[in-house]
Amino acid sequence: MKFSVTVTLKKDVLDPQGKVVKNTLVNMGMNNLKSIRQGKHFEVEVEGNDQSIAEEKVDEMCKKLLVNLIIEDYKINKI
Amino acid sequence: MKFSVTVTLKKDVLDPQGKVVKNTLVNMGMNNLKSIRQGKHFEVEVEGNDQSIAEEKVDEMCKKLLVNLIIEDYKINKI
Repeated sequence: MKFSVTVTLKKDVLDPQGKVVKNTLVNMGMNNLKSIRQGKHFEVEVEGNDQSIAEEKVDEMCKKLLVNLIIEDYKINKI
Repeated sequence: MKFSVTVTLKKDVLDPQGKVVKNTLVNMGMNNLKSIRQGKHFEVEVEGNDQSIAEEKVDEMCKKLLVNLIIEDYKINKI
């Protein structure tokens, strides 16, 4: 069973990496770019046929390792 | 207009970072984890009301800077 996990910085957390990317794109002539924020993306495959149990497992992985809950939000989707 | 861009390594490209994450999770007791691959995620906001023009701009950004087309795939979604 496959899930995608998207990890993004919380709204009020500064994103220096995204800022550098934005400045670079603007310098390359992309004038209509308003903002860009960078996050992480995981494709997780777990064994088992029960979707809710599998999703719980992925949620546990997020909380224990993949996501820093103080500064990041995350979203799990079945794919 | 907001778009999400998901950048993933192509299927046949090794993902050492994902491998480290996988090993760590298995060592933490997640035995039913089959595979995990890491990618990047961008939230891009561009000006303008025409979706197709905006999407083209985002696509140009991907090709010129955000994505290494030799080893990475990308997907653009309107959010």
